Amino acid sequence: MSQERFSTLISSPANTQEAASRYVIGADIGGTNLRLALADGAGAILGRWAASTAGTLDATMVLRLMREGVDALLREASLPPDSLSAIAAGAPGVTNVDEGIVIATSYLLGWRDVPLRRMLEDEFGVPASVDNDVNLAAIGEQRAGLAQGTNDFVFLAIGTGIGAGIVLNGEIHRGSVWTAGEIGYMLVPGASDAPVKRGDPGALEFLVGGEGIKQQWQNRWSRNATTLAKDATATQIFDHALESNALAQEVLQLAARTLSYAVYNISLILNSPLFVLGGSVGIHPALEDATRLVLEERGTRVQPKLICSALGADAQLIGAVFLALETANKQTALAES
Amino acid sequence: MSQERFSTLISSPANTQEAASRYVIGADIGGTNLRLALADGAGAILGRWAASTAGTLDATMVLRLMREGVDALLREASLPPDSLSAIAAGAPGVTNVDEGIVIATSYLLGWRDVPLRRMLEDEFGVPASVDNDVNLAAIGEQRAGLAQGTNDFVFLAIGTGIGAGIVLNGEIHRGSVWTAGEIGYMLVPGASDAPVKRGDPGALEFLVGGEGIKQQWQNRWSRNATTLAKDATATQIFDHALESNALAQEVLQLAARTLSYAVYNISLILNSPLFVLGGSVGIHPALEDATRLVLEERGTRVQPKLICSALGADAQLIGAVFLALETANKQTALAES
Repeated sequence: MSQERFSTLISSPANTQEAASRYVIGADIGGTNLRLALADGAGAILGRWAASTAGTLDATMVLRLMREGVDALLREASLPPDSLSAIAAGAPGVTNVDEGIVIATSYLLGWRDVPLRRMLEDEFGVPASVDNDVNLAAIGEQRAGLAQGTNDFVFLAIGTGIGAGIVLNGEIHRGSVWTAGEIGYMLVPGASDAPVKRGDPGALEFLVGGEGIKQQWQNRWSRNATTLAKDATATQIFDHALESNALAQEVLQLAARTLSYAVYNISLILNSPLFVLGGSVGIHPALEDATRLVLEERGTRVQPKLICSALGADAQLIGAVFLALETANKQTALAES
Repeated sequence: MSQERFSTLISSPANTQEAASRYVIGADIGGTNLRLALADGAGAILGRWAASTAGTLDATMVLRLMREGVDALLREASLPPDSLSAIAAGAPGVTNVDEGIVIATSYLLGWRDVPLRRMLEDEFGVPASVDNDVNLAAIGEQRAGLAQGTNDFVFLAIGTGIGAGIVLNGEIHRGSVWTAGEIGYMLVPGASDAPVKRGDPGALEFLVGGEGIKQQWQNRWSRNATTLAKDATATQIFDHALESNALAQEVLQLAARTLSYAVYNISLILNSPLFVLGGSVGIHPALEDATRLVLEERGTRVQPKLICSALGADAQLIGAVFLALETANKQTALAES
């Protein structure tokens, strides 16, 4: 169980008096890690905590882990147990934001219809909110990253898989049954058009997602062609491509070309001016550069801007902090009215 | 120059007094035809007029043709020349709705930065509005077709090419520089990923658009395989497929499979619950049935509903009438305030 802690100011306190009076927790629930941030009412992060979720598939177990982390964070910040005014969490799956229910997560968690908001409220005794993790990353990027002041952009999170957080007219577009942005199954040239079994990686993520990139590397790997291990991660493969290894460059180019198709298709449909790449694989500069190059070669009339997230792997955690602050503010507004 | 006229009530008069007092013109400017409708203030269509635009590429010439048509419609309805209160027109191209400028049309018209709204206002002396033709078709379908009461749907217009009118939260989504829905260039499996020269058909429309379907037919045609001519239209080819001709069915299946990819990709991104097929090629029942079948075979968790436009080839003309009525109402509201 890893643990790390540092402090970052992600927004200047509008009201220092108010800022000091309450605290919130933002949580990023992932298939491999649970990450928490404790922030004050102005959004300044006072502490962070992380733990592995490997083998912790059950939502009740994740909640127990969160309790542990929250207690540790409050203790380290010398805050009494009743200091929290709200909590917000993002999970990697289709989330009904109105009802606070995680409808379905990826195969890593395997949740179905988990009433996460109610569970959080019961556990911590404060108002809670939940959202899809990529949507939270988009919110983080919009409030504290490179998409500040941008009302229309797409956040592309590429980790194990790939998902899009779509911001239109300043708001997350969620779709009729909360599945907007689930682009892992997008059908593009070079991708298989065979129907995909539930839980299996989609056509697009098989070429662009972290697991897919590893697979592409393994399919091509030979002892003579590289010094890098056969079971290398996507990030290691991209680093290797920057060192001019031909095999790694081939895998990088395949991922970049396929990602450029996805960006292009989304751009045709939405005409979004900005695409922000995020997620552990998506923020690799080699992927960003290679993808931008392929997009520019296409030479379209309408060229979307492609940049890497300024928040890196923190985007969704910071988005969760902002959602928690919003939840706290709503509660205050309700109490005062 | 063809001419036709009939009368349809597209909405019941909310106020018969008001309905009688003013009239509007809706115009559908196409690469092959100009079509006009005269309607009263309640949206009842009093007369229709159409003329070929073949060889009439210049916007000034189109305006002259419109003048001719409007005069004929007013004369036939025994209305004085000053009876109009507004006019609205749709053109097949990227349109800046705020400025009233048609930025670029398809190769059939070849317009660049045409100030169509100002030209209409100068010509007819009444307030005018302009929009992209597919967006107008979506508006028509939403107000008087099968998408009534639906706040989120996609209108797919398939004629010579293919375009989408995207309705989100009840409003047309136009994008940052008015190009949202220009899906003719979408990259899907089986489509070429080679960059497309401006004015050439896009990857998707090369397989699904009317011209593309004709091309696919010609590539496969042989005297032994069919009684249908080599230069048949997409609609004729689809009719032939319904007669169980194997060659025509192959071309239909290719179009349907490719169209299903586009519907699927848009559905992943937007999670729109409804797709309405329109346009001269899109409303063919053989295409609708074949596409729905391919979509259902994919067996996705989220299955969008696919239907044919109830307004058929009239969707954009009726959308133009509604836009004209809205323009007249705005003018009245301004005058009264």
